[in-house]
Amino acid sequence: MTKMLTSAQRLAWLRLIRTDNIGPVTFRQLLSRFGSAEAAIEALPELSRKAGRPMQPITQSRAEDEIAGLVRYGAKLVAQGEPDYPAHLLHISGAPPLVTLAGGERLDWTRTVGIVGARNASTAGVKMTRLLAGDLGERGYSVVSGLARGIDTAAHRASLGTGTIAVLAGGLDRIYPDENIPLAHDILDNGGALITEMPLGWEPRSRDFPRRNRLVSGLSLGIVVVEAAKRSGSLITARLALEQNRDVFAVPGSPLDPRAEGGNLLIQQGAKLVTNAQDIVEVIGSADPARSALFDPEWLPDGDTASDAEPAADDRGRVLDALSSTPVGVDDLIAQTAIAPNVMQVLLLELDIAGLIERSSGQLVALRHG
Amino acid sequence: MTKMLTSAQRLAWLRLIRTDNIGPVTFRQLLSRFGSAEAAIEALPELSRKAGRPMQPITQSRAEDEIAGLVRYGAKLVAQGEPDYPAHLLHISGAPPLVTLAGGERLDWTRTVGIVGARNASTAGVKMTRLLAGDLGERGYSVVSGLARGIDTAAHRASLGTGTIAVLAGGLDRIYPDENIPLAHDILDNGGALITEMPLGWEPRSRDFPRRNRLVSGLSLGIVVVEAAKRSGSLITARLALEQNRDVFAVPGSPLDPRAEGGNLLIQQGAKLVTNAQDIVEVIGSADPARSALFDPEWLPDGDTASDAEPAADDRGRVLDALSSTPVGVDDLIAQTAIAPNVMQVLLLELDIAGLIERSSGQLVALRHG
Repeated sequence: MTKMLTSAQRLAWLRLIRTDNIGPVTFRQLLSRFGSAEAAIEALPELSRKAGRPMQPITQSRAEDEIAGLVRYGAKLVAQGEPDYPAHLLHISGAPPLVTLAGGERLDWTRTVGIVGARNASTAGVKMTRLLAGDLGERGYSVVSGLARGIDTAAHRASLGTGTIAVLAGGLDRIYPDENIPLAHDILDNGGALITEMPLGWEPRSRDFPRRNRLVSGLSLGIVVVEAAKRSGSLITARLALEQNRDVFAVPGSPLDPRAEGGNLLIQQGAKLVTNAQDIVEVIGSADPARSALFDPEWLPDGDTASDAEPAADDRGRVLDALSSTPVGVDDLIAQTAIAPNVMQVLLLELDIAGLIERSSGQLVALRHG
Repeated sequence: MTKMLTSAQRLAWLRLIRTDNIGPVTFRQLLSRFGSAEAAIEALPELSRKAGRPMQPITQSRAEDEIAGLVRYGAKLVAQGEPDYPAHLLHISGAPPLVTLAGGERLDWTRTVGIVGARNASTAGVKMTRLLAGDLGERGYSVVSGLARGIDTAAHRASLGTGTIAVLAGGLDRIYPDENIPLAHDILDNGGALITEMPLGWEPRSRDFPRRNRLVSGLSLGIVVVEAAKRSGSLITARLALEQNRDVFAVPGSPLDPRAEGGNLLIQQGAKLVTNAQDIVEVIGSADPARSALFDPEWLPDGDTASDAEPAADDRGRVLDALSSTPVGVDDLIAQTAIAPNVMQVLLLELDIAGLIERSSGQLVALRHG
């Protein structure tokens, strides 16, 4: 499983994943179909042209520029399947093919606990976070969080000396919020890590934060929600963590305190009530993300490529007619259109690359909005 | 099942249960053995003499004085099996044969929720209690509590208009604490009830409070713990409630607040986290104390008496030798001493009446301390 990419392979992986409309799921399908990222990049213009929206992968020089930029930051690209790829991340659905990693060489990436919570944290919430993160660190756990204001900041600060991992929603050179740029430097100076799946120079947008949150939970054996409103990013992280088969913990609070609503709700729904690090360690000691049935990490292609089925002239139109903005299963689509499964896979890949459809992990597909 | 005692029977029941060393368990065994309270009272002097500690039941005039006193307070004695005996109380182990009841004629004794918590409650705890008790009352539930300072007081006050039941640890004329005498009057004036198993004139001692707590939970479909320290009477009530097969709810709080320790601990142990009355009503709507397997309410004797087994001369000594302050099962005692079961029952009853042994509900027996 663990092998290093060649420089050429890494460059091709980077070009492919940085190309518009290609996310982790599509990336994986392209590698399955064409056998390598290089072959997929060559096939891309023709593939998208067939779907009626010709497109090009990003240029080799742009990808080379990103790699050179990362070197200047002392960071590197790590590919899924390489030894430095965070182990727990292999076991989540839609794991990024490449992550940008700065620091963290001596961190324990297996004994990891995520701590998330409100940006407008209370004094008590910050104190609670410090106690938990500090104690978890002393017990040998690395603390994972999102470098946001409030709870995240307190979690990183309290575990600076014992090991902390900050997951960014934007590029490595686009730390958000600005006020936490010094904290990011402190993390690196103390042997901690910054990690992101986004390109250098990428300004995080609001929809990048939930995407980032799936990595916070994905990197962790379990996550702790310290203060969270009823509708908040922390509750999204908790839901993602459950989908990833991770333990979810929540710090309780008075029902009169709005910042405790999310945590109390999580506990009512089955999250474990946490009052100290011991409560977490007792449960998480036996956690094993590899038990997750959601993802098969053995997906890297071995050179075999799928048969080159050729769709008929009107097949694309039939598939687009059959789709709406409501996701449906690929099997249902096959049943409805009577298009052969191998042909359907080719069609969906073309439409996907062309930006006409959206595929979620699992086997759901929908028309893309707008 | 529901029949009224005659005046003579009620007097005999009262004399028997008010006699030293006779609690609910022994009371029941005496009635089983002798067929009626009257017969048990007659047998008592001889029974205790055999165990070496002659004793007398309380006099008829003392019992008559108590009944007359209760009439002056507008209260009455209700016997297990009578229509006014609180239904849920039938289903607890060691249910009192007689309770003193003042007020509560129009209360709903079946839709009942107990609310207990710290005497030194915080402002937030009191506010939370008011919200819960007020909302439960509006939803048609009677609120049961112990008339103590803090949470109990807030629970009674918030449910004065909708129906509240105060369970006393002492006699009806010995309201504790003094500062809650006006509250006790307010409860009666508003159609609520005061209830106790203790005699008129009884000053509550510290050990009477846990005993009272079993009635708070026994009268309720479920109990809510609002603020409680880790070692507190409220946690005892919660444990008793679980033994009585009642639902246990707890209000969460910050782990930094010592008054939240008990509630958070209960939630970790399986109590339901409560943020509002709706959380309670959803669960308790389907509660049925009659499902409790702990107690068979059909125990009232039908006139048959147990065979009059006569112990051998040295049997009493052998039983006392075999016992220690550690409770053991009656079956184990029978196996060890090789005394026939019917003889053993007679011996234990005598030793019990004589104050030499202590019997807990269930079938455990131990030497009495001191």
